Amino acid sequence: MGEGGASAPPSACAGGFHVADVMTDLRRRLREVWNISRASAVLGWDELTYMPPGGAQDRGEQEATLDRLAHECFTSDETGKLLARARAAGIGRGEGDDDVIVRVTEREYERARALPPSLVEERSRLAVAGHEAWVKARRANDFAIFAPTLKKVVETQREVAHLRGPALDPYTALLTATLPGFTADEIERLFDDLKRRLVPLVGRITAHADRVDPAPSSLRVDDDRQWQASLAAMRAVGYDFGRGRLDRTIHPFETSFGTGDVRITTRVDEDQWEFALFSSLHEMGHGLYEQGLPARWQGTPAGESSSSAIHESQSRFFENVIGRSRPFWEFFWPTLREIFPPEFARFSLEEMYRAVNRCGPTLIRTEADEVTYNLHVILRFEIERGLLAGTMEVNDVPRVWRDRMTDLLGVAPEDDLTGPLQDVHWSGGSFASFPSYTLGNVISGQLRETVRAEIPDLDALIRRGAFAPITGWLRENIYDLGAAYETKELVRHVTGHDVEAGPYLAYLEEKFSDIYDL
Amino acid sequence: MGEGGASAPPSACAGGFHVADVMTDLRRRLREVWNISRASAVLGWDELTYMPPGGAQDRGEQEATLDRLAHECFTSDETGKLLARARAAGIGRGEGDDDVIVRVTEREYERARALPPSLVEERSRLAVAGHEAWVKARRANDFAIFAPTLKKVVETQREVAHLRGPALDPYTALLTATLPGFTADEIERLFDDLKRRLVPLVGRITAHADRVDPAPSSLRVDDDRQWQASLAAMRAVGYDFGRGRLDRTIHPFETSFGTGDVRITTRVDEDQWEFALFSSLHEMGHGLYEQGLPARWQGTPAGESSSSAIHESQSRFFENVIGRSRPFWEFFWPTLREIFPPEFARFSLEEMYRAVNRCGPTLIRTEADEVTYNLHVILRFEIERGLLAGTMEVNDVPRVWRDRMTDLLGVAPEDDLTGPLQDVHWSGGSFASFPSYTLGNVISGQLRETVRAEIPDLDALIRRGAFAPITGWLRENIYDLGAAYETKELVRHVTGHDVEAGPYLAYLEEKFSDIYDL
Repeated sequence: MGEGGASAPPSACAGGFHVADVMTDLRRRLREVWNISRASAVLGWDELTYMPPGGAQDRGEQEATLDRLAHECFTSDETGKLLARARAAGIGRGEGDDDVIVRVTEREYERARALPPSLVEERSRLAVAGHEAWVKARRANDFAIFAPTLKKVVETQREVAHLRGPALDPYTALLTATLPGFTADEIERLFDDLKRRLVPLVGRITAHADRVDPAPSSLRVDDDRQWQASLAAMRAVGYDFGRGRLDRTIHPFETSFGTGDVRITTRVDEDQWEFALFSSLHEMGHGLYEQGLPARWQGTPAGESSSSAIHESQSRFFENVIGRSRPFWEFFWPTLREIFPPEFARFSLEEMYRAVNRCGPTLIRTEADEVTYNLHVILRFEIERGLLAGTMEVNDVPRVWRDRMTDLLGVAPEDDLTGPLQDVHWSGGSFASFPSYTLGNVISGQLRETVRAEIPDLDALIRRGAFAPITGWLRENIYDLGAAYETKELVRHVTGHDVEAGPYLAYLEEKFSDIYDL
Repeated sequence: MGEGGASAPPSACAGGFHVADVMTDLRRRLREVWNISRASAVLGWDELTYMPPGGAQDRGEQEATLDRLAHECFTSDETGKLLARARAAGIGRGEGDDDVIVRVTEREYERARALPPSLVEERSRLAVAGHEAWVKARRANDFAIFAPTLKKVVETQREVAHLRGPALDPYTALLTATLPGFTADEIERLFDDLKRRLVPLVGRITAHADRVDPAPSSLRVDDDRQWQASLAAMRAVGYDFGRGRLDRTIHPFETSFGTGDVRITTRVDEDQWEFALFSSLHEMGHGLYEQGLPARWQGTPAGESSSSAIHESQSRFFENVIGRSRPFWEFFWPTLREIFPPEFARFSLEEMYRAVNRCGPTLIRTEADEVTYNLHVILRFEIERGLLAGTMEVNDVPRVWRDRMTDLLGVAPEDDLTGPLQDVHWSGGSFASFPSYTLGNVISGQLRETVRAEIPDLDALIRRGAFAPITGWLRENIYDLGAAYETKELVRHVTGHDVEAGPYLAYLEEKFSDIYDL
């Protein structure tokens, strides 16, 4: 301190250390990148929770600057040199912390180098403008307002695809970033498996829709009680509020600024109380994952989550596999009955359990039930692939949306708000990310099978609100592995099997045959 | 887009543009610095409003990284070269936008170059650790817990002083950053003027304390009503909530992420309703200034506020000169009576006006009245100067605090919470900043005199809630000038006089002689 000159050369990040230990240099550099990217995440959280409308334009520029700096610093030759020095020192082949850090960093370094900084910055700017356009379009319930931005997003995504894999099918090229290890054709085959069994299952359920009483779902619950219910569920499972928060937003999300500050958001709709409760459980699943990431690797790519598919397996696990299970309701219904309005007292546990598992074709993905949800995702996958391949035009999206909804679910939106304007993803330039949701479901089914085998009294534990063995198992087998394994490897490592739809489909068929007496 | 290579060299900020127009290059570079520093401000706001405790450590690192980057980028030789190129092109002598930007940037560049990046980063880290230590010490009501951190702060400030002005008295050296243009001796003389007339004024008021009924102040007002009252007052004056927010924190503050997003915070104490209302008006004064800064210079040092003293003149203007004036209460009391509990209905306008102007020696600066406030500031100035000069030890602060409080105000704290632990400033490494508060008061008195001369029907306007002419005048004469003028120049430019205590003292003596029938 007090040393150094005022005219040190500018650098995007810590550089020129060259102390004895290459890992100290590498970690310090990666930490700087992480600091900048987590700062950007704070700005993103604020943008979607508390930022007044007047802040939008400057915020976009601020985020763009941070994202560019983080990208430039990470992808700079200096990082490559440090990785090469580490390899030259024999680091990267073993199973020690440094080996893992070097391996994962190399992997992410190559992936990140595929995109030039200018494109990263452009994407970031577009994401903010896109979000604004999306909000405007939603307000007017008019897809045409959003279409010009979506066209730009598609163009940018084509560029991205070309840079990521000039020889690959464009969708597969995007998957190298969003679902590394999977091809678009593999996803299509998996989705075909799902369609083959889920479309008939939805048909059988719809034919017997009257077997579940929707009355509990249609009761109004005021904002404050819903908020208390979300907090109670999160506390029961063990979400650490000393290292996290729950806030309000339009579209629920989870974001992390380090394992010590992991935030989730939800939206309260007084006429649909299930939305806030289950979206809170969903985002909490993401949040538990982030709170449990390995501290020893924090600030390096190894300390991140494995993939968005694995992330989604965690959110779906808590939202559905746990949160919509009979044992969970045996545990939680007495608590909820205390919080909820007195009219709820007339419902039995079984009525509540069935009501929250009510299944049937609806228009909104985020409000869809466990079974139909996947068909919503498949629709989006098909549209994204068509847009990217150029076999579909942006202006055709509303029409195609209606047609495919009819094919897959037998219902069609009458406006854009319940059609293609419902998702935030494309507005933020998030493309080829929907498949991860259904992959997550599929994997949650595989995890369920494994957890049940390894914790035989699972249902009894849930029934008495003892979640620590479950979160402990997940911490040890998933969270603590960070990004050491990618999706396919991790699933094989944890379950002993490849990613496969079987366990998930069996789970759905068993559960819903029971609920609907099929 | 899609151009450029993946291996662009790292840089803290946009560099290497060298397009035809030097001002485009300079503005772009300054904008990057601004983007990074505003991002850091977002992190700072979040830290003091919504951040869970677990986030503190990582947040400190994240802010330190951003502050270092902004500082490095701004102080780099590249900025100096751009400024030299602008000068060579004849820019900087006239009165055009580019001239102002070059002049102000040069001034701030030289000031910022005085500190090496390592020291800036160290200060930033220390600020976070210091805030944590301060919160802990407050919880335990024990200055000793905070003392080791304060010692470090003082050491760092000595280094800073040495770097800013090796030949100057250390306090004057710090003032080159916090109150440029003023020496410590000048401040001391101004403060002596104030002491000479304020100590006797406080004495006379105290002797007739019974002439103001404290009853309205001691009524309990619940949190929600207080919140509504703050919002109502802010809306009435014209605070733009489309470009700002009000949130809760321990110690009220204002922060800005651009003219489109200017946030203030307050604290609600149900037993002291005046605190939230007047601190909201105070911070709103800061916020109006930031919302009104010149858009044409935003993202450059010229687009910032003139100084913290001018900033404080704005907050004090709305808190006291307006907010505690009889015309304001003629306007606002009917509104407040609607919001406040029914017990308030028994008080007359005159009783309310006098109650909110109740004056007398108390222990907490931020709760002090308009008159005694300055004596609190003078005490802090004396302690800071002593610590810096080495004529006082950190461990002696509680004792000296008690002694000087007795001399200046005739009261002394019995614990540390109501003594030296009450202010957040030192914990964040903010030193030599207290004098600006009283300078702000002094200047608010000068502005009052000028505004009254230029808007003759001022009281009538306030009485009917027509604040636009006043905020318009301030926008034109203060806000819109950004940092083009420093404190002394701006006061001379606006009022035609040097900074002088006369108008402020005359205002206080007239107002309080009336209220206390002296």
